Amino acid sequence: MKSESDLQSWRDRVESVLDATLPTENLAPQRLHQAMRYATLGGGKRIRACLVYASGSLFKASEAALDAAAAAVEMTHAYSLIHDDLPAMDNDSVRRGKPTLHIAFDEATAILAGDALQTQAYLLLARCRADDATRLGLIHALAEASGAAGMCGGQQMDMDATNQSLSLDELETLHSLKTGALIRASVRMGALIGNADPSELHALDQFAQTLGLAFQVRDDILDIEASSEQLGKTAGKDAEQNKSTYPTLLGMDEAKKLLSAYSEKMHTSLSLLQRDAEALKQIAEFAVNRMQ
Amino acid sequence: MKSESDLQSWRDRVESVLDATLPTENLAPQRLHQAMRYATLGGGKRIRACLVYASGSLFKASEAALDAAAAAVEMTHAYSLIHDDLPAMDNDSVRRGKPTLHIAFDEATAILAGDALQTQAYLLLARCRADDATRLGLIHALAEASGAAGMCGGQQMDMDATNQSLSLDELETLHSLKTGALIRASVRMGALIGNADPSELHALDQFAQTLGLAFQVRDDILDIEASSEQLGKTAGKDAEQNKSTYPTLLGMDEAKKLLSAYSEKMHTSLSLLQRDAEALKQIAEFAVNRMQ
Repeated sequence: MKSESDLQSWRDRVESVLDATLPTENLAPQRLHQAMRYATLGGGKRIRACLVYASGSLFKASEAALDAAAAAVEMTHAYSLIHDDLPAMDNDSVRRGKPTLHIAFDEATAILAGDALQTQAYLLLARCRADDATRLGLIHALAEASGAAGMCGGQQMDMDATNQSLSLDELETLHSLKTGALIRASVRMGALIGNADPSELHALDQFAQTLGLAFQVRDDILDIEASSEQLGKTAGKDAEQNKSTYPTLLGMDEAKKLLSAYSEKMHTSLSLLQRDAEALKQIAEFAVNRMQ
Repeated sequence: MKSESDLQSWRDRVESVLDATLPTENLAPQRLHQAMRYATLGGGKRIRACLVYASGSLFKASEAALDAAAAAVEMTHAYSLIHDDLPAMDNDSVRRGKPTLHIAFDEATAILAGDALQTQAYLLLARCRADDATRLGLIHALAEASGAAGMCGGQQMDMDATNQSLSLDELETLHSLKTGALIRASVRMGALIGNADPSELHALDQFAQTLGLAFQVRDDILDIEASSEQLGKTAGKDAEQNKSTYPTLLGMDEAKKLLSAYSEKMHTSLSLLQRDAEALKQIAEFAVNRMQ
């Protein structure tokens, strides 16, 4: 049975992989490499990397075989945070408990470092040591999840929705793209490396879809109930930006009930696998109950 | 023998491929898709796409087999222009004779559309109809050329060099990354689809490396000698931003002599191929003598 310390070991592991994979700081152009490393290393919950490891290890894939995919999803996530934090986007000054990249460096470097991190994810996958078909499957899954029909599309919907009142359906669509797509891709990539069969991929995708939503509901709740210090990023941003959230649409009590319902749904999806899915259960538990 | 009208037919062809490949404007999120199309369609010299077609057709690859690679390099180029034009970067308001994306739309949409276009290039290559090894080769070539060790790295060097005096070597390194890497990748990608052998790839790479430099020398000359109207973008930017250029380092006469030397060098590289390289010669000729 996986414990929280196993998740911690994956967090540590992906940190080492990222450290070894990102261009070193003493190589020109130093400033770009420093910025890429600043924004990617030394923090974050590493949920997406843990999902790759947890999903792949269901099918006995080795951690070494999962490293590139785990690092690629974290690079993609890091690039999206850098760009989301820019003054023209969410204009955020604190991330993972430290100044955002454009504050610590400058806006131009932040734009470029985000761009280069996105590229680096594909380079890493193109070079990793899986067979050709698996590498292509990984690249396809990541690109589909993070482009216009995924993460970028969701971010655009989020911007369009500022000061707009969304329906619950619209909110769900927005989040299933903005954060859900990359979470689903992480689970899928682990499973692809583990050679999961189509029915297993389907059950895992159901799980991942619910996980993405649960993650977002909890995020919305924490944005209201937690402090900036606790979160390592600015709290109260949703209200400040007048955004529709689960608590504003449903009320806080109903939002918390929804979270419990998602929790049950995730357990049901995992039970279909008939495998020891303890690590994924741990992540689901974390998504629902986390304090940051 | 290829004529200028053959290059024009490739320009038209990649325009159709891009039009068919980019997400349609009536699909949500509309604003993002409109922005992606605004910045990619309806203009540009399409040098990179023409290089893919010209290089591939040397080895009898069909135009249909080259379409995805041609569109992917143009998407990558378009994304880099969107981000380079942002206020925090070059702060340019005109591109391809029309308002830059952040002027026509807004900064946040421009950042996101650039991001999504980069992703779209990899999605297109992951899905294209070459065999697995070729698709991976294409993805690898594009990612290597456009990330921190290529285009993004060169752009960072360019920013770092503003108000600095560079040596000719430093200027060459900067441009071989900033614009040269993607030009080389375009030639390489066409040749990979055409199953070129290693010695052919090498000769073509020599050609492409020189072509990238020639292109830049001509760009620097035009920035001084041409009008904004003629260029479809702001002229005189290098002097305004106090950037090192070939004419400032060498003098205008020497810069023009260098361009002639590059022209000869390109012909020598192409003669090694012992194939009908007329289309590549046309592109070399265009790079050296173009008026925009």
